[in-house]
Amino acid sequence: MSHPSEPDAAPPAPRPRARDLGLHFGVHAPGEHNAITDVPGVRVGHVTIWHGNHPQPVARTGVTAIVPDSPIDLFARPMPAAPAVLNGAGELTGTIEMTEWGVLETPILLTGTSAVGRVADGVVDELFAAGADEVVIPMVGECDDSHLDEMRRRWVTAAHAREALAAATGGPVAEGAVGAGAGMVTMGHKAGIGTASRVLPGLGTVGVLLLANFGALRDLRIGGVLVGPHLADTPAATPPAPTLDQGGSCIGIVVTDIPLDARQLRRVAQRVGLGLARMGSVAHHGSGDIFCAVSTANRQPRDAEGITDVRLLADGSINAVFSAVVDAAEESVCNALFVADTVVGVDGNIVPGLPVERVLELIEHARV
Amino acid sequence: MSHPSEPDAAPPAPRPRARDLGLHFGVHAPGEHNAITDVPGVRVGHVTIWHGNHPQPVARTGVTAIVPDSPIDLFARPMPAAPAVLNGAGELTGTIEMTEWGVLETPILLTGTSAVGRVADGVVDELFAAGADEVVIPMVGECDDSHLDEMRRRWVTAAHAREALAAATGGPVAEGAVGAGAGMVTMGHKAGIGTASRVLPGLGTVGVLLLANFGALRDLRIGGVLVGPHLADTPAATPPAPTLDQGGSCIGIVVTDIPLDARQLRRVAQRVGLGLARMGSVAHHGSGDIFCAVSTANRQPRDAEGITDVRLLADGSINAVFSAVVDAAEESVCNALFVADTVVGVDGNIVPGLPVERVLELIEHARV
Amino acid sequence: MSHPSEPDAAPPAPRPRARDLGLHFGVHAPGEHNAITDVPGVRVGHVTIWHGNHPQPVARTGVTAIVPDSPIDLFARPMPAAPAVLNGAGELTGTIEMTEWGVLETPILLTGTSAVGRVADGVVDELFAAGADEVVIPMVGECDDSHLDEMRRRWVTAAHAREALAAATGGPVAEGAVGAGAGMVTMGHKAGIGTASRVLPGLGTVGVLLLANFGALRDLRIGGVLVGPHLADTPAATPPAPTLDQGGSCIGIVVTDIPLDARQLRRVAQRVGLGLARMGSVAHHGSGDIFCAVSTANRQPRDAEGITDVRLLADGSINAVFSAVVDAAEESVCNALFVADTVVGVDGNIVPGLPVERVLELIEHARV
Amino acid sequence: MSHPSEPDAAPPAPRPRARDLGLHFGVHAPGEHNAITDVPGVRVGHVTIWHGNHPQPVARTGVTAIVPDSPIDLFARPMPAAPAVLNGAGELTGTIEMTEWGVLETPILLTGTSAVGRVADGVVDELFAAGADEVVIPMVGECDDSHLDEMRRRWVTAAHAREALAAATGGPVAEGAVGAGAGMVTMGHKAGIGTASRVLPGLGTVGVLLLANFGALRDLRIGGVLVGPHLADTPAATPPAPTLDQGGSCIGIVVTDIPLDARQLRRVAQRVGLGLARMGSVAHHGSGDIFCAVSTANRQPRDAEGITDVRLLADGSINAVFSAVVDAAEESVCNALFVADTVVGVDGNIVPGLPVERVLELIEHARV
Repeated sequence: MSHPSEPDAAPPAPRPRARDLGLHFGVHAPGEHNAITDVPGVRVGHVTIWHGNHPQPVARTGVTAIVPDSPIDLFARPMPAAPAVLNGAGELTGTIEMTEWGVLETPILLTGTSAVGRVADGVVDELFAAGADEVVIPMVGECDDSHLDEMRRRWVTAAHAREALAAATGGPVAEGAVGAGAGMVTMGHKAGIGTASRVLPGLGTVGVLLLANFGALRDLRIGGVLVGPHLADTPAATPPAPTLDQGGSCIGIVVTDIPLDARQLRRVAQRVGLGLARMGSVAHHGSGDIFCAVSTANRQPRDAEGITDVRLLADGSINAVFSAVVDAAEESVCNALFVADTVVGVDGNIVPGLPVERVLELIEHARV
Repeated sequence: MSHPSEPDAAPPAPRPRARDLGLHFGVHAPGEHNAITDVPGVRVGHVTIWHGNHPQPVARTGVTAIVPDSPIDLFARPMPAAPAVLNGAGELTGTIEMTEWGVLETPILLTGTSAVGRVADGVVDELFAAGADEVVIPMVGECDDSHLDEMRRRWVTAAHAREALAAATGGPVAEGAVGAGAGMVTMGHKAGIGTASRVLPGLGTVGVLLLANFGALRDLRIGGVLVGPHLADTPAATPPAPTLDQGGSCIGIVVTDIPLDARQLRRVAQRVGLGLARMGSVAHHGSGDIFCAVSTANRQPRDAEGITDVRLLADGSINAVFSAVVDAAEESVCNALFVADTVVGVDGNIVPGLPVERVLELIEHARV
Repeated sequence: MSHPSEPDAAPPAPRPRARDLGLHFGVHAPGEHNAITDVPGVRVGHVTIWHGNHPQPVARTGVTAIVPDSPIDLFARPMPAAPAVLNGAGELTGTIEMTEWGVLETPILLTGTSAVGRVADGVVDELFAAGADEVVIPMVGECDDSHLDEMRRRWVTAAHAREALAAATGGPVAEGAVGAGAGMVTMGHKAGIGTASRVLPGLGTVGVLLLANFGALRDLRIGGVLVGPHLADTPAATPPAPTLDQGGSCIGIVVTDIPLDARQLRRVAQRVGLGLARMGSVAHHGSGDIFCAVSTANRQPRDAEGITDVRLLADGSINAVFSAVVDAAEESVCNALFVADTVVGVDGNIVPGLPVERVLELIEHARV
Repeated sequence: MSHPSEPDAAPPAPRPRARDLGLHFGVHAPGEHNAITDVPGVRVGHVTIWHGNHPQPVARTGVTAIVPDSPIDLFARPMPAAPAVLNGAGELTGTIEMTEWGVLETPILLTGTSAVGRVADGVVDELFAAGADEVVIPMVGECDDSHLDEMRRRWVTAAHAREALAAATGGPVAEGAVGAGAGMVTMGHKAGIGTASRVLPGLGTVGVLLLANFGALRDLRIGGVLVGPHLADTPAATPPAPTLDQGGSCIGIVVTDIPLDARQLRRVAQRVGLGLARMGSVAHHGSGDIFCAVSTANRQPRDAEGITDVRLLADGSINAVFSAVVDAAEESVCNALFVADTVVGVDGNIVPGLPVERVLELIEHARV
């Protein structure tokens, strides 16, 4: 754990993930990396903007890109997709078009609230540079990281969006205080990026990636155990702030190679909220709990005409996907909490890392 | 025209349809019967309940069934479908399930508001009698026909629903003061059932059937011409009533054999409202302007599992369907108005038939 | 517990509620009866239809009425209200109008799926008998009770709806296998009606009543503890059926005297789903998880015109309401499960009561 | 009319508005300026970016700001508001939050599609400069102006957004090829910004401002008269392009001082689409027909808590508002078309001004 009296010169080193500590979530097995990148073709890129310690200007922010295909190829051949909103006190641009057309046309980028316009602008830059010859409507989601980041400095630029796209890779995904997650807080503890996946034999892979920045400590449940009230004697985030106990947000992205259409994907996206509920969320008034789900199957050219052939999973087989999403969403939030260690940010504000040992004790005690 | 001083012993004889009088609506050609039944397999059945003249008990109501396939076959193999609401001051039962599952499982029945429960009950009877072994959620739409019908007598029974189903046939569709349309009023004049169709070469057929019971005379436009204010010197509906100038409703059903999925069908259903707007509708507060669209293609068994093959029209070709629906909806309302002649109902209330000759003069005068 | 070899001649005697056994849900205190009737003016009425044992015809069904004011007074002065859907594989009639106008005009009745039309018809009867002079659009919600009830016998009539309305009283509410809950099943165990309330000092009371008929045993969580897999050695429902492990439904009704408008009430209704998620629900494909929320404040005459004065809770104070609803929804489901004992129904199908002692042991073991 | 062989060095001079030429739309009287600025406190600001002629780089774009109150005052005390979508192939950022919270927190800015991110960024700059101390989620709407503007040059910057805000004034509003309307096209002719208002005695004022860029010439109706096909012998837009006959978009903003809540404002916003339908729109697949409605009444501090007093128009009086919006939307589109003269843009593309004299002849001929 970083030492609060020696403020962070760099993001805290990542800690073990929830599953590495013995936690399990549901009956479906995770993919190779237990990450959204287990879905074939999906890459994730982070740009973490982190410098300065109070009283210097303090940056604790960044950009994370979920890239199901190269931007120009995705633009040329969009993927079926749909959004869902649990509580809409936030932003995920592009959802009006996604709802109408039922497709994702661009990568999905996550960042701090104030940077949404710039990151969207960077996506337009990227696509124009890659040869897109039609107008671009980017998808950018946000959470409010201003408890740790000096948001009025507006560190993020359009170029950072392109860097995050360029940085996108498959394989293991960095979690916690990284990329868009740099300054995020969940239920009184440092969180940020979390991911998980499930393999459904015979169907395909479901991946979830969350930007976790929601909820109040009093409500925190891990593995079903209401641990929040038991952490009252561990270090608390300082100073008290509305975003620490009733605000925040959670953008949740689901990608799967299972062939689902937009109607089905809306249903899938909605299940992310049930995973948050398992963590104790009541979807606070100030929370932007906004999700979307994407299928990499059944892509059509963006200007397709006439009759097209599509292969779809029947709704009668969709319950396994629902379970997988709820489980993976729950695990993704846990990963964000377990991995992210204590961060000191703007004005010397402190957000402690989850006291993992104490939590594990509580869970072990509650094991039946 | 029936003579108001000799109240109706039977529904008024139908008058010519709009197209027979030289009106045209858009560039697409209608099908053989210019009716929803031009879509292969679609049948329509009416039961008209009409007896008594004031001061006797007065029935001016009925049931209309749109039957895209036999009830049990439709239940066993639902059709892709979606609802859309322009103004929701009314009822079309079953839309919650239709929205979630994206299918139509039962025929769609239309009736007066007070009869919705009974008609729904009749659909359950019908399906259980036909061997359905799962619970049934019927689709029943309504408009308020109480300006002409003695609604508190509640003439309609569950048996009438089954009669309407049994009466369903292909070919020409009776319009105006028939079936569910018996007691309906539109923009100060007698209306009720109207239908029209369009053939889109290479794509298929689009059929619309409306239960027209909406709007205020002052707003009436026919063929784009604002005729309402020019009809002030023709007989008015009596007595004045809120449902005659700011209430009413319009249930609009679209069926097509063009392969569209639920997302697309919602878009299609929504276009019915644009046809009503061309007639002058502003979608009054009290109006239940509720639509749904159904495709007879890509049916799957109701308990289908695993991967299914689907053929869909690409969105890039959907504009023709949108135009066809708007045009056919406009023509359907005109048909309801042109065909339905004057009716005298409960309490001696009179709703005049559209003064067709005067309207045609106005339209002819305005022809450019 | 009733003895399976001596089938039920009457509903099983109610067992203790969850809170009576030491369980707690959240920090807010319940009202006097820990029931929806703690909201001033709200009454609940049950009609339980229960007779016969296999191989006789078997009735295990009924009607439950939630009556926030007498039907005619509610019709004359509707209450602000809004629906929300988690998974829409079910029916709650009247939601189109509720969404558009933002009010509840009639009591809300719950029943088995096949009886929706008849119960709606009974509500129209009731209102016409009470003098309503406009058309009535009832609200009737359903779950599928056909695992225990011989649904094709269609025991419920319109008269039962009126009986349930007449039976409505304040005070303690019967739970479990009563009224609409007679034949319902949740996560492999007998359930049905459950209710709970919360008092928010300075704000008012929040009441929840659920018709619980959802989920799979494998997912069952009580008090956060995943007990389902630990109940594998206790009696299982027989025979296996899709409605027992992936179907079912849950209609959830929230009533409060806190002054909220329709926009806020939609948000409140949506939180019921988070309570179900805490119980382990993933909102199965076949589940009708449909909710609505009603405020007894700010009633206006149904034909109000001009400017009206309204007092509303600011959104900035709404988080307590959200928490109260999630907690009360979770407790309501528990109450349905704890109270309802084993039932034998059609074809000798058995649904066991929750093995309460075993569950309490597991929870006690997990207490931290 | 500008002469196509001498390409435009500046925007074409505005031509008379529709009403100045004798057209009328509905029965309600317009406000003093027949503009959205007739609503007390509402200001509009344009920045028009216009330079170069082919083969030079060509700018035909800009930004338009609708400013119901100064940005920081609006942020501190948001206004009730709601969006509505007819066809969602476009973007109006901020609608997720507007839907959830039911308020407008920032001015609404309109621009070309590629500039949305930058304009949003400028709004954040403006609010931070004015002292906003919470995160900002701007509302920026777009249409595609790439038939005339060299969009890949990306002329618009964040600074332009602030210039448009600074330029906002009350009184008459420039229409046609100005601000965000510089490069827009409607039904084959130059259009862009259009506005109109209606005064409802005893209620207040309703103002509409549109960014009109939609529809196909073949569908064009003016004053109900289908003039499109009669303009085949007048100059056509060149070269043919999908955006000229099936694409485009229309962002429509309604502001009123009539006290309406978010539920009612959604209904009001939806009526803009009925005005577009009167112009012949079928809401093409590629069209972003996205609306929102705002009330300047009943503002609350953004962090209001506890009980607040609100005065609202009852739904029973809302039909006049609906009519006013449909009429004003229709007139706004006409104004955009009548005012905007011929423009030559990128690649020498030409979009002719509406041949007003020919249109007036047709309308005069059709007058009944």
